[in-house]
Amino acid sequence: MKNIVIIGGGTGTFTLLSGLRKYPSNNTVIVSSADDGGSTGVLRKELGVMPVGDIRQCLVGLSYTQEEMKELFNYRFDSGSLKGHSAGNIILAALEKITGNIDNAIDLAGKLLNVRGQVLPATLKPTTLSATLNNGKKIIGEHNIDVPQKRAPIKSISLTPNGRVNPKVIAALKSADAIVLGPGDLYTSVLPSLLVKGVKETIDASSAKKVLVVNIMTQAGQTDKFSPADFVKVVNSHLGKKKLDVVLVNGKKPDAKALLAYKKQGAEFISPEIKGLNAVEVKSGDLLDKAIHKKAKGDVLHRSLLRHDSDKVAKIIWELL
Amino acid sequence: MKNIVIIGGGTGTFTLLSGLRKYPSNNTVIVSSADDGGSTGVLRKELGVMPVGDIRQCLVGLSYTQEEMKELFNYRFDSGSLKGHSAGNIILAALEKITGNIDNAIDLAGKLLNVRGQVLPATLKPTTLSATLNNGKKIIGEHNIDVPQKRAPIKSISLTPNGRVNPKVIAALKSADAIVLGPGDLYTSVLPSLLVKGVKETIDASSAKKVLVVNIMTQAGQTDKFSPADFVKVVNSHLGKKKLDVVLVNGKKPDAKALLAYKKQGAEFISPEIKGLNAVEVKSGDLLDKAIHKKAKGDVLHRSLLRHDSDKVAKIIWELL
Repeated sequence: MKNIVIIGGGTGTFTLLSGLRKYPSNNTVIVSSADDGGSTGVLRKELGVMPVGDIRQCLVGLSYTQEEMKELFNYRFDSGSLKGHSAGNIILAALEKITGNIDNAIDLAGKLLNVRGQVLPATLKPTTLSATLNNGKKIIGEHNIDVPQKRAPIKSISLTPNGRVNPKVIAALKSADAIVLGPGDLYTSVLPSLLVKGVKETIDASSAKKVLVVNIMTQAGQTDKFSPADFVKVVNSHLGKKKLDVVLVNGKKPDAKALLAYKKQGAEFISPEIKGLNAVEVKSGDLLDKAIHKKAKGDVLHRSLLRHDSDKVAKIIWELL
Repeated sequence: MKNIVIIGGGTGTFTLLSGLRKYPSNNTVIVSSADDGGSTGVLRKELGVMPVGDIRQCLVGLSYTQEEMKELFNYRFDSGSLKGHSAGNIILAALEKITGNIDNAIDLAGKLLNVRGQVLPATLKPTTLSATLNNGKKIIGEHNIDVPQKRAPIKSISLTPNGRVNPKVIAALKSADAIVLGPGDLYTSVLPSLLVKGVKETIDASSAKKVLVVNIMTQAGQTDKFSPADFVKVVNSHLGKKKLDVVLVNGKKPDAKALLAYKKQGAEFISPEIKGLNAVEVKSGDLLDKAIHKKAKGDVLHRSLLRHDSDKVAKIIWELL
């Protein structure tokens, strides 16, 4: 059995799991413990629980149960006092309150969803993500960094507290055959877990292939004007001695209508140029999902409408092993 | 396999199920579709879903799964915007929204809880309960009738709309060996289901033993000064031609401290006098649970602190079959 560790947690990871689940790999997702936006942010603030949104989404991505149970976890209330909350977030929050820790809560939710594989928060206590911009300005809180807006480039990010690494994360990284980073919000989903002490050191000690799936579109305020090489550079600067081995780059330009919707958010198509990518193996091609996804009613967060073709991406990753 | 149908739905029914589940009977609970208080009332009003609180409680009562899953369904949030809601109510509401009807929602929740037996709302659409008092005053809404307060005795209750009976209710009553009414709030939990057209007619056509479990305490505004005979009289007046066969009466007076707490709510111990009970078989004795139950933090509803001894009550019912 091949062990694949995915570092991310948002919609991009969910898409990846939709493809990877068709292969006989043992999939572990490591999600950041710094999320504080939307339903997750409200539950974290009001109940003192861990960020649960990414955990929920990844559990559903690893679930082998009837469709309605997955729909339950993803069901988003669109009116009344529950507006914006997903039922799965509420379930995870309640289970954490009942069992006293997120690890047990994930186990129980995993039973309800008949999950194969595992979802691991990078730390077992919530942390706060901050970004320092090139102009010296500091942005505190994941959801503030995540707001698409024009601003100076991000110089660095940090976690407060840095947090003690989840021991299961270390164990998963040690036995990994591949470590896949992205697709997903670079500074708010992919990189925060690498900041936790022990993570990059364990990756350094591992012989796993380190794979980056480059996003389809840039994100205003995070990856403006980024080329695939810029993604590689930033990710490598957050790794230790061992750098990325392989990078997946989508070469298919989305249609004009979709691009226009993204343009309003300040996001642009990432051209598949390979300049500056000589140190890594590049897998390029049409990796774009033909479907344009819709936002759930009641959801207050920004979600990707354009996604990777999960089957194509999973096939490439699988063939690397 | 003996078929037991319990008409009620609240804490009293839950207590009864804790005892009955130890016997190899097939248990069906019929709950009112008129509940509109607490978390249930908020979800009903905000989301347009069926009253779910009693359904949840009875599903847990019929559940054979690990303790944490039951705790999840009963977990009550005690702070923030979810305050007062139970996670199980939220799950049932989401499942009703997803599947489009409460019947499917109950089936799915039943799978999550590994339920044996069934819980059936009397009607598949919500209804409103009204009470007319002896002084002509009308009280609209189950939760308004349920508020413990001094007022004129209830003359009659009605449902608006009367509602079309759930076909599964008719099927369950037809195959019942025993129909157990109570314990529970007389006018707001036990009697409303009898008002739905087709229910008492089906009971008339059945050969099931009709059993009433008389409450331990009176309830201000519903059963003030009621004797066991008063309970029998009121229940019989809501049945058709076939009247109650057996009545269970607790003879054990609770301790002074518990009585004092109830006195503040205008509730008194129901003396086990058998005057006026010659038409029914009376089963009397110490049916009181030794434990005094506590209210969950965050719960806004009035709950019974004193409860029946579930094992003793279940044994008596089982021996009637």
